[in-house]
Amino acid sequence: MMITDLPGGVTAPDGYLAAGVACGIKASGLDLALLVSQRPASAAALFTTNRAAAAPVHLSRRHLAATGGHARAIVTNSGCANACTGAAGDASARAMADQTARALGCRPEEVLVASTGVIGVALDPAKVSAGISAAVGALARAHGDLAARAIMTTDPWPKAHAVEVATPQGRFRVGGMAKGSGMIEPSLATMLAYLTTDAQVSPAALRLALAEACDDTFNAITVDGECSTNDSLFALANGASGVRIDGRAEREALVAGLRAVARELALGIVRGGEGATKLVTVRVTGAACREDARIAARAVANSLLVKTAVHGGDPNWGRLVAVAGRSGAAFELSRARVAIGGVDLFTGGQPHDDRAPAAAEVLRGAEVTIAVNLGTGGSHEATVWTCDLSAEYVRINAEYRT
Amino acid sequence: MMITDLPGGVTAPDGYLAAGVACGIKASGLDLALLVSQRPASAAALFTTNRAAAAPVHLSRRHLAATGGHARAIVTNSGCANACTGAAGDASARAMADQTARALGCRPEEVLVASTGVIGVALDPAKVSAGISAAVGALARAHGDLAARAIMTTDPWPKAHAVEVATPQGRFRVGGMAKGSGMIEPSLATMLAYLTTDAQVSPAALRLALAEACDDTFNAITVDGECSTNDSLFALANGASGVRIDGRAEREALVAGLRAVARELALGIVRGGEGATKLVTVRVTGAACREDARIAARAVANSLLVKTAVHGGDPNWGRLVAVAGRSGAAFELSRARVAIGGVDLFTGGQPHDDRAPAAAEVLRGAEVTIAVNLGTGGSHEATVWTCDLSAEYVRINAEYRT
Repeated sequence: MMITDLPGGVTAPDGYLAAGVACGIKASGLDLALLVSQRPASAAALFTTNRAAAAPVHLSRRHLAATGGHARAIVTNSGCANACTGAAGDASARAMADQTARALGCRPEEVLVASTGVIGVALDPAKVSAGISAAVGALARAHGDLAARAIMTTDPWPKAHAVEVATPQGRFRVGGMAKGSGMIEPSLATMLAYLTTDAQVSPAALRLALAEACDDTFNAITVDGECSTNDSLFALANGASGVRIDGRAEREALVAGLRAVARELALGIVRGGEGATKLVTVRVTGAACREDARIAARAVANSLLVKTAVHGGDPNWGRLVAVAGRSGAAFELSRARVAIGGVDLFTGGQPHDDRAPAAAEVLRGAEVTIAVNLGTGGSHEATVWTCDLSAEYVRINAEYRT
Repeated sequence: MMITDLPGGVTAPDGYLAAGVACGIKASGLDLALLVSQRPASAAALFTTNRAAAAPVHLSRRHLAATGGHARAIVTNSGCANACTGAAGDASARAMADQTARALGCRPEEVLVASTGVIGVALDPAKVSAGISAAVGALARAHGDLAARAIMTTDPWPKAHAVEVATPQGRFRVGGMAKGSGMIEPSLATMLAYLTTDAQVSPAALRLALAEACDDTFNAITVDGECSTNDSLFALANGASGVRIDGRAEREALVAGLRAVARELALGIVRGGEGATKLVTVRVTGAACREDARIAARAVANSLLVKTAVHGGDPNWGRLVAVAGRSGAAFELSRARVAIGGVDLFTGGQPHDDRAPAAAEVLRGAEVTIAVNLGTGGSHEATVWTCDLSAEYVRINAEYRT
């Protein structure tokens, strides 16, 4: 199996069309994206665990259940989350699916829906309807780029990636696009991500592969520890490559392809986090169990004291020890180790403050690795990606909406 | 039972002396505090759950176990946490207790020790020793104020409070002092709190009363969700008032007195949180169980999106719904309610955006109440106090230590 990067995003695999148009939901810019598979596709998705999940999340979940995991299209608007909007919001999400299905000649259940933007504001049905009409008319393989722009809120840049996976059975492609933590007006940010492949795979196998590829990519990033009402991760597999995923080697190849694209998109979301200036890789080792490794890595990645120290270029290993110690994970101080950018700052219960200048030098870069060994003698580990916390984050999120 | 505020702090109850001196651990200012009971006192304490707990925490825990809950003095230094300092740190903490005991004529086990300041830096034994000598010479009932200043790191002001509790059996007093989240140089902040009373109570009953009084005061505040290596809460009861705590009514009076002082100190810590400009009371009701109420209240109180919105004066109820929804607590969107400063912004699944200006007006004040009903129909509730998140917080914590 060999994985090669490709140009393009969701339309890099065969048999996908996309469009991104402006219909006036946002004050300016593209705000409606349509992604269509030219043939019926297996479909899988992972949704927010938020108990205040938005109308499009409920609708998409129902549609996937109704079709047993098949879809033809995903329609997305930005600028309005259609969350906390009651029965009217449910009707708006349904209308988006219905109109898209009529235009494409498929069943409404074969259309998935996503929204991102302000919570608690009603979608304007006329604008959305005009947007869907325009998007259907503009569908093209070359428009993957426009779709990636149309799902953005205040993301600093569009996020798209694609790879080709070569297997003994042939080549297939995986593409993707995502939007991350940006605020609009501002309200809650939402992560939306879309993966496409022209491999041929059953809905059940696609679901498993998606969950596996997500585990150490989208599920291993954090910007501010929040989980939105609209977070959605979709995968479509239309079989256009003719490569069937039916053996163990092919399943692994599919997971590897999905993971490669998911990882690029996930890291892109962190790099483009609100006010972020650095990508931080938090690597926890020496954990007594996998869950402890994750708990400690998440605690470090979400710690305001760690994120502000990284922002300030301060190799403050004391905060790392303290956060690991309070994380709830088993922790043995006398055998714990902390390194920043490969520079050991605390080992065997003793600080090495003479090395602080070397670590401070590393912290000047745009990418930083923080390594914490919990000292339990266990062999479990976990990696989480995060960004630094800047005064700009506060500014973005404190500004009054009016 | 009647509770009346008194002037003063830890030395307001009878039979306590205190001192606060400067011995050069900090670059400037008082940095060593001594609190002494003139007679043997029952003692109880609650310590950090951090698995990287500092040397003084381990020592104080051992001393309380050795005496079965008795103490004569608490010696505290600021400017150095004596955390992550290995065997030398353990020796330094022991030396603090030993010297204090010799000077006061009691056993070392009757001395409790606390430290706060930079992690991973060794205490200078000569400075600490000189400080203890000076403090013993300066002990006076009038010096409670100096002690409250000597435990500060970069707290914006000292925190002290005292009350008198009148019961049918007579009057007793409760006093206290605390330091909160301030940074030094900067490193991890630490919460230290000291409660004194002249009530006469067994160590076991004092422990129970302290835990009960702490539950909805010190355990219900958060500045940045961190838990330091040195957090300690001490209580001394020396019986000087002659009021014995042996019946149910007296136990309740003791808890009420401890709680009254603890509450003032805890709120003072939040008000003086790093970069804080507002005290925020988060009140969660309608929870299915007590634990759910706490989980949701803590999630709201620690949410960066909520804390930045409050800082910016933005009545962003969408963030409150979203955080309650992702908190893990049972949550029913269609019956949930959100109010800011008594202004209902979301009820019965519907926003009331016309009321946003009234809520924004409330948010201009220095004290704000956020109320979230989880909509489960349950009757459980919890209150957590927090502060807003400002760019100043980032500045304080991002500044490089050199």
